[in-house]
Amino acid sequence: MKIRVYYEDTDIGGIVYHANYLKFCERARSELFFNIGSSPILESGHFVASSLEAKFIKSSTIGEMLEVKTTLLQAKSASFTLEQIIYRGSEKVFSMNIKLVFLDHENRVSRFSSEAKELLERLF
Amino acid sequence: MKIRVYYEDTDIGGIVYHANYLKFCERARSELFFNIGSSPILESGHFVASSLEAKFIKSSTIGEMLEVKTTLLQAKSASFTLEQIIYRGSEKVFSMNIKLVFLDHENRVSRFSSEAKELLERLF
Amino acid sequence: MKIRVYYEDTDIGGIVYHANYLKFCERARSELFFNIGSSPILESGHFVASSLEAKFIKSSTIGEMLEVKTTLLQAKSASFTLEQIIYRGSEKVFSMNIKLVFLDHENRVSRFSSEAKELLERLF
Amino acid sequence: MKIRVYYEDTDIGGIVYHANYLKFCERARSELFFNIGSSPILESGHFVASSLEAKFIKSSTIGEMLEVKTTLLQAKSASFTLEQIIYRGSEKVFSMNIKLVFLDHENRVSRFSSEAKELLERLF
Repeated sequence: MKIRVYYEDTDIGGIVYHANYLKFCERARSELFFNIGSSPILESGHFVASSLEAKFIKSSTIGEMLEVKTTLLQAKSASFTLEQIIYRGSEKVFSMNIKLVFLDHENRVSRFSSEAKELLERLF
Repeated sequence: MKIRVYYEDTDIGGIVYHANYLKFCERARSELFFNIGSSPILESGHFVASSLEAKFIKSSTIGEMLEVKTTLLQAKSASFTLEQIIYRGSEKVFSMNIKLVFLDHENRVSRFSSEAKELLERLF
Repeated sequence: MKIRVYYEDTDIGGIVYHANYLKFCERARSELFFNIGSSPILESGHFVASSLEAKFIKSSTIGEMLEVKTTLLQAKSASFTLEQIIYRGSEKVFSMNIKLVFLDHENRVSRFSSEAKELLERLF
Repeated sequence: MKIRVYYEDTDIGGIVYHANYLKFCERARSELFFNIGSSPILESGHFVASSLEAKFIKSSTIGEMLEVKTTLLQAKSASFTLEQIIYRGSEKVFSMNIKLVFLDHENRVSRFSSEAKELLERLF
């Protein structure tokens, strides 16, 4: 998952605004779903961030090509945890562990539906 | 409607990213609804931009306080047009004419529901 | 210039937030520069939006692939005007005419530097 | 520091997009500087996020008024750590510990300048 840094991603400091690395990681997560012809929005609900730990290692700026690598760290019955690292070439720019949970249509955290479970098994 | 310019609103050019003036104007439109205890999302649908003409007159930057002034230019049975001007003190920074239409729950453009019509009459 | 619609681009209405089409068009403009090994940020200054007219023709939503097509409409000594149309397949979703001017390092509008002029000739 | 949730903050899930809570917290940090007539961008450099741990506790949606509370947890010679909690009324929506470091004008992490040190003492 390659991501180009554009004007909108930078701020007056001349570098990528910190919260935008979370957006880049979200794009990479969604792209996993799109890649297998699916969507992150399921009939039975959708996934949302529950907690995360992030490290801002290097700054990046306009025009650079970044790459997001996503690894499954842990899967449970109602959550899963990913490691997502953003590289510029071989250099780490950002890393994050993010725990995701499943929200049903009333926006309540719930166990994965069978639809969600099957999808996660295909993804990781 | 006062709006402070933050890091997130600027880009590497050191000034507010052009598309963010549209966000500031949208905040001002929504605030009109909130101010009368209502919401821009109605039971019967919601309003969306149909077309706009914008002028970027001055640049603005982090820490500045801007003010959005909103005037009704025209109201029809299925659309209304607003003029929205963003000031920094007495100086015009941005101006826009925006035409809004009403989308029902199937995301189809439709005439204003009676709910929408009453609300617009209270607003303007 | 292909653009995928992600969560961040949508809003509670379930469709792309109107101002984000301007971001998509800006990405396409920047990509023109990157494609020829250059950057939209020159030694002598950079380009900024001066005015635009936009039409929101269809709504689009998460997961869709959009494409931005950019055409030069007019070039003058201190400004140029582009037409940018966003398609989903063969269907027009958004169109915009945008006039861009050149800002020097003191953020003053100025005639194109020779650097800017040469670059624009290579682009269009 | 009160923050209203607008269309732009939500996504197709109907709730605030996760990365936007980081933006809300950044607004609150910048507002600390503006409140004492200063700016987060100093002559000698500026502060950037180095790492953070975030918890997404409740979802929030359009029209809601949130409040960000910021507390200094630790100050060192080259970094400081804040706790930032976002409330909706008395209910916690989001919490984060964020470590900030000082970047000089070459975007290198450095010890706080005397300007930065004095400012931080006035803030906390």
